[in-house]
Amino acid sequence: MSNHIRFEGGSLLVLDQRRLPQREVLIPLKELDDFVKAIKGMVIRGAPLIGIVAAYGFAFGVRSLLKRRRRITHRDIQRIHDKLAKTRPTAFNLFWALERMKREWEEHKEDPYLLERLFDLAQKIHEEDIKKNVALAEWGASLITDGDTILSHCNAGELATGGYGTALGIIRRALEQGKKLKIFLTETRPYFQGARLSAYELNKYGADFEIVPDNHAGLLIKQGLVNKVIVGADRVVANGDTANKIGTYMIALCAKDKKIPFFVASPLSTFDLSTPSGSLIPIEERKGDEIIRIGKRYITLPSYKARYYSFDVTPHYLITSFITEKGIIEKPYARNIRQILKE
Amino acid sequence: MSNHIRFEGGSLLVLDQRRLPQREVLIPLKELDDFVKAIKGMVIRGAPLIGIVAAYGFAFGVRSLLKRRRRITHRDIQRIHDKLAKTRPTAFNLFWALERMKREWEEHKEDPYLLERLFDLAQKIHEEDIKKNVALAEWGASLITDGDTILSHCNAGELATGGYGTALGIIRRALEQGKKLKIFLTETRPYFQGARLSAYELNKYGADFEIVPDNHAGLLIKQGLVNKVIVGADRVVANGDTANKIGTYMIALCAKDKKIPFFVASPLSTFDLSTPSGSLIPIEERKGDEIIRIGKRYITLPSYKARYYSFDVTPHYLITSFITEKGIIEKPYARNIRQILKE
Repeated sequence: MSNHIRFEGGSLLVLDQRRLPQREVLIPLKELDDFVKAIKGMVIRGAPLIGIVAAYGFAFGVRSLLKRRRRITHRDIQRIHDKLAKTRPTAFNLFWALERMKREWEEHKEDPYLLERLFDLAQKIHEEDIKKNVALAEWGASLITDGDTILSHCNAGELATGGYGTALGIIRRALEQGKKLKIFLTETRPYFQGARLSAYELNKYGADFEIVPDNHAGLLIKQGLVNKVIVGADRVVANGDTANKIGTYMIALCAKDKKIPFFVASPLSTFDLSTPSGSLIPIEERKGDEIIRIGKRYITLPSYKARYYSFDVTPHYLITSFITEKGIIEKPYARNIRQILKE
Repeated sequence: MSNHIRFEGGSLLVLDQRRLPQREVLIPLKELDDFVKAIKGMVIRGAPLIGIVAAYGFAFGVRSLLKRRRRITHRDIQRIHDKLAKTRPTAFNLFWALERMKREWEEHKEDPYLLERLFDLAQKIHEEDIKKNVALAEWGASLITDGDTILSHCNAGELATGGYGTALGIIRRALEQGKKLKIFLTETRPYFQGARLSAYELNKYGADFEIVPDNHAGLLIKQGLVNKVIVGADRVVANGDTANKIGTYMIALCAKDKKIPFFVASPLSTFDLSTPSGSLIPIEERKGDEIIRIGKRYITLPSYKARYYSFDVTPHYLITSFITEKGIIEKPYARNIRQILKE
């Protein structure tokens, strides 16, 4: 298990990522609705972690139901599945994990140990994710050179995953290998995942990092203050187009303009072969109010309208390569992504 | 005169832009140091307005000195000039305005009405700026079509100038012409000039606008939600490279990628023929603390390091055209900028 997500006293304890780094508060999740609210309300976030918490939520949901009734139907299961699936539309790991949980139920619904099986699978999804990230980080670290100056956007670290992290996992591994690195973290508006979460993680690893506003990426890259970009992903589709935190596309354009590598680090559970290209990825739109308010304080008049999309899509041709637990995927992506997923 | 900058009771009253839109507070500037602090501390900002306030500051500085002594020397004048010139390094209008003031002193230092001359010139620089913006806006509005969806970054409005505004002046004029427009304003971290100041202005004009984080520009442009970009400038150099609020370069790349027009609206007082290309423009670096603190509240741990550049440089080839008070400058910029400045 991990520090930010673990079992205790019959519930799942998750670290409230909205309060970090100022406060480390654990929130217990027990009923299906607790899980739905935690995912929707961004108590936890990050595509792999959303998948893991949803898998646990599925098991907890079945447990609650079994306390009230002896038999549960396919319709009940679909309802649990759908409630969790509807929390956030973009991160593919959510659907991937829920699909695995549903299949487990279907295959073992008559098994007297069904509930144990579901909890075991959720835990397996969690543990697998950590292992995948460790492997992914090893592959990624092979691309990092002593002296690199790396930019990362949002938080694709331990906190976004079951553990260890993807983009930040690579940085962590490279640091463990003794490479000297300088890291720039974009603050990531509106939730400041970079300034709060990635900084919190890199600080723990003793990394040399600096926070910049999102609008600084262009200048840093253009002036040669950054020589590599590594980000995570919320969904990679069949042609390699990649949904990730809003702003990623703009950073990829800057990397292309300056001809520095732009890497996407992501486990294969984020890859969605059923969607042919990025324009078909559903992009979550959240309340505009979340833009003009920081905590309880408004940065401008509350009556002003604002718009808030959580993700954007980086076209495949702006991506240098994908770093996964099974290795590095090079171009042409349509062919090579299909290949690696088949293996 | 303008609402945000006017004479009263022997001092210059300026609207404190750090408090807008929540509060409209006027601050009186009287001594040279008041002016230096107001410019440095961003009580007022925007390249044209910085120039105007510095010109007034020069006149007030001479007045204070003349109260204490009968004669002032070239060295005194240079000291006043330098104190104001050192406030902010990027905006060219600052140096342009101070140069005019210094020349006025040199030409008329024996004139018994010298002080009146200096105040008259500051006021003239101010009034000229408004007239230029009105002319610039008329030129710019000719490029705006009914139904346009326009993105603007930072605040290049009335508040950034002597009055009327440049980029927002164009939008204002197009609205006066009865054109229906939809405006997206990037919030502009860290000071939120877009979310606070541009929104405040567009709200007064009854414009249909929405605020987005800076990292949204790419998605809005890529998805066709924006069909034109108009920004102001802090310095345009001989080859057309343009320093403007940090993040402008990234937006220009997005506009180029989607092939939509990217206009720079700026009076000729922002053009610096003495600098051949953008890499030579001094870029102001401010305290990293201003990034991780909003008002008195820290968004992350105060011990985390942050970096803050105020401007970036958009290379000339990403700019569709310049809109000035004397007309629209098309490519090739090196030749056409020189030409229009000679006229």
